[in-house]
Amino acid sequence: MIDSKHLDAFVNIVGQENVKSDKAHLIAYCYDATKSRFEPDAVVFPRDEQDVSKILKYCNEHHIIVVPRGAGSGFTGGALPANGGIVLSLERHMNKLLEIDMQNMLGIVQPGLINMDFQKAVEEVGLFYPPDPASEQYSTLGGNVSENAGGMRAAKYGITKDYVVALRAVLPNGEIIKAGKKTIKDVAGYNTAGILIASEGTLAVITEITLKLIPKPKFKQTYMGIFPNVTSAMNAVFKSLANGANPVAMEFLDALVIKALREKFKLDLPSEAGAILVGDVDGSSQAEITSQLETLKESFAHNGSTDFIIAKDNEQANQLWFARRNASPAVTIYGTKKLNEDISVPRSRLPEALEGIYKIGEKYGFNVPCFGHAGDGNIHVNVMVKDKNNEKEMEDGHKAIEEIFQFVVDLEGTLSGEHGIGLSKAPFMNIAFNHAEMELFRSIKKAFDPNNILNPFKMGL
Amino acid sequence: MIDSKHLDAFVNIVGQENVKSDKAHLIAYCYDATKSRFEPDAVVFPRDEQDVSKILKYCNEHHIIVVPRGAGSGFTGGALPANGGIVLSLERHMNKLLEIDMQNMLGIVQPGLINMDFQKAVEEVGLFYPPDPASEQYSTLGGNVSENAGGMRAAKYGITKDYVVALRAVLPNGEIIKAGKKTIKDVAGYNTAGILIASEGTLAVITEITLKLIPKPKFKQTYMGIFPNVTSAMNAVFKSLANGANPVAMEFLDALVIKALREKFKLDLPSEAGAILVGDVDGSSQAEITSQLETLKESFAHNGSTDFIIAKDNEQANQLWFARRNASPAVTIYGTKKLNEDISVPRSRLPEALEGIYKIGEKYGFNVPCFGHAGDGNIHVNVMVKDKNNEKEMEDGHKAIEEIFQFVVDLEGTLSGEHGIGLSKAPFMNIAFNHAEMELFRSIKKAFDPNNILNPFKMGL
Repeated sequence: MIDSKHLDAFVNIVGQENVKSDKAHLIAYCYDATKSRFEPDAVVFPRDEQDVSKILKYCNEHHIIVVPRGAGSGFTGGALPANGGIVLSLERHMNKLLEIDMQNMLGIVQPGLINMDFQKAVEEVGLFYPPDPASEQYSTLGGNVSENAGGMRAAKYGITKDYVVALRAVLPNGEIIKAGKKTIKDVAGYNTAGILIASEGTLAVITEITLKLIPKPKFKQTYMGIFPNVTSAMNAVFKSLANGANPVAMEFLDALVIKALREKFKLDLPSEAGAILVGDVDGSSQAEITSQLETLKESFAHNGSTDFIIAKDNEQANQLWFARRNASPAVTIYGTKKLNEDISVPRSRLPEALEGIYKIGEKYGFNVPCFGHAGDGNIHVNVMVKDKNNEKEMEDGHKAIEEIFQFVVDLEGTLSGEHGIGLSKAPFMNIAFNHAEMELFRSIKKAFDPNNILNPFKMGL
Repeated sequence: MIDSKHLDAFVNIVGQENVKSDKAHLIAYCYDATKSRFEPDAVVFPRDEQDVSKILKYCNEHHIIVVPRGAGSGFTGGALPANGGIVLSLERHMNKLLEIDMQNMLGIVQPGLINMDFQKAVEEVGLFYPPDPASEQYSTLGGNVSENAGGMRAAKYGITKDYVVALRAVLPNGEIIKAGKKTIKDVAGYNTAGILIASEGTLAVITEITLKLIPKPKFKQTYMGIFPNVTSAMNAVFKSLANGANPVAMEFLDALVIKALREKFKLDLPSEAGAILVGDVDGSSQAEITSQLETLKESFAHNGSTDFIIAKDNEQANQLWFARRNASPAVTIYGTKKLNEDISVPRSRLPEALEGIYKIGEKYGFNVPCFGHAGDGNIHVNVMVKDKNNEKEMEDGHKAIEEIFQFVVDLEGTLSGEHGIGLSKAPFMNIAFNHAEMELFRSIKKAFDPNNILNPFKMGL
């Protein structure tokens, strides 16, 4: 329980209507996509950067934990107040699109702006913001930056960090800093924006984001390749890219996912398909699109694809994409609990990565349907626990996950391509990082936050 | 003078032949492109990462300053041992191209490898490494990463940081860390690679660099636009880019530079030209090139260009580029001392930036020829001091530079687009950064290097 004098102090800063400690609010701000629940002591809604500064200064002086929060749609507990303290909610007031700078092709936003609202606004003026996490309809750009969100279009266009030009942020002591400029080149001072990206709200509270925009590609077309097995599909991924193919997305579904889609959604996918790759190509001319599709078709055929479908119109494109979009709900036919991890490996190691992951699943008797962003090496691995109330089975599931992490790291891969570490993956940090690296992370944390008030103990720190 | 027992310790680590403290070596390692000179106490040539680790561990324990050095071609004194200590020279042994990973399109190199040697090696196998600082013939990739080097191709392809996938580095205490993986997406742990880039050798010694490569564009063509004045050229820069032009380079020469090129090199440039833009376009088809050139020509004409030249062959392309490549030696006709700064502004502010810079020059009576990477907003500003032995004139020159920095920062620009801060720009850090930002930089430095042994006191820290 938080001392009422602290609540009074927050009320003095942001007003009565922006400090909540009633049960309804504590519950509303206690969860994220992990389904873990931790009630905060209070929820505070800053109206602007000055409010953020004053709140942090106060909390720093009184050693009150502050957990910044956007939409609360994270997959690893990054925005959960697992150690109490206040939730600092950026999504109520600090959610504005401040400027679209057409001349420099930049968007300037507050952290609480929803990704898709931003995408729509910039597309209306002919520009394009590529990062499109699956949560794009509800996740905030502040959250996207804090987790360095990826998405479907990363194969061609990169991820959130490739679009962050500059940040404004408030340090735990309440000081306001700028990190980066509105310039393409800036080598003055340390790259503090670089370290704030993906720092999961542990170093500073981001209050303004300047994002790079690009011209909106004029043409787009959807393709789907059918493969007899996962190995041929995975070979097709890295070989077609090394051959100069440059698709926006190259998404992958394995045989278990295809089976689940046929069963659950009655999709008309070829029953003999052992794997599917689906995605878009885009460009500034139809000729470019056609040439891209030819390269893909040829590379796929060379790696054993049995069919290559090009969507004739939007309707067919949506049909092809339906399979990928519904992969996640489909696989629930295999169990009541999905242990879902988003590992990432160098693309050339995708074939052996998948092979090894299935083997670990078999060893414990789990179905492990896999799908995801093969074009950038990032695969969503789902260890399906049949009965989540079976303690032994759940324990085995967690053992399988740990083995998968160890295996992936041995393949020069990483624990997380998109979701971050937060709470959920914290126990596995020692698989990916040595003692010196963990100590360095702790030193960096301390440099920004000596009193350890800002989202403490996340990321295994 | 360094205690001989320390030299013995270094000899024990790297062997007699790799520790030098004779006068010839001290002089050979005392300079960089700034023409300032600071002799080290010794020069040590590590053979591998283990050597680097042992040397740093020893120096950390004995509080001996270590200044990492590549080719010593920096423009701001980053590699100068201004406070004594040893120079750790990475260019003698740690200069190997370790691997070109064709399947993942990555290059893995040691820090002492020369940029151009790397470019040539990857182009031989059909790949492309875009960052091309003017020093590409002799500067090392370790130096490029440490300064976050730019180059001509940044307008289209970005800068060094956009190509660094992962680093290996040794911390001042001798511990070896990996920062980043060979994966496109990696959000596990803090982005330490992000903060090591552009840290000017003050945080860790980089021992291995994994760089992203892209397919080599098949077609390239050179263009030149002639403008009546700087304002029309600067408007053409940001307006053509906002219109969807995507040239590899869009380099700028002003009237003073054009005059100098005509006088010194007898170049046949139009005498009425008030400004020139020159660059390349590239792409995967001749149609793409043609369409790019049309967009440029139209946008340039719309902003008042009087001529648009397209190179017919390599010979003409070289002629067009000759002007840009010789801008720097040409402007020496205006004075015996060139105070050369590489400011950067948001592209839309280029017209007012140039106008203001000339005005500051006029106020002090200096010619200020400007040229550079207009396509990315990065301009080389040359305050020409007629007589470098005239103390008053030199003092005025430095005053003009300081005024230019203040003016540029007011335009949302930065002190340095490419060259870094080092020693030369350290006095101006307070123009660009507030107290909280400088304190944060100092905290970050301390987190990595608590004993302040690694390239200390650079960047105004």
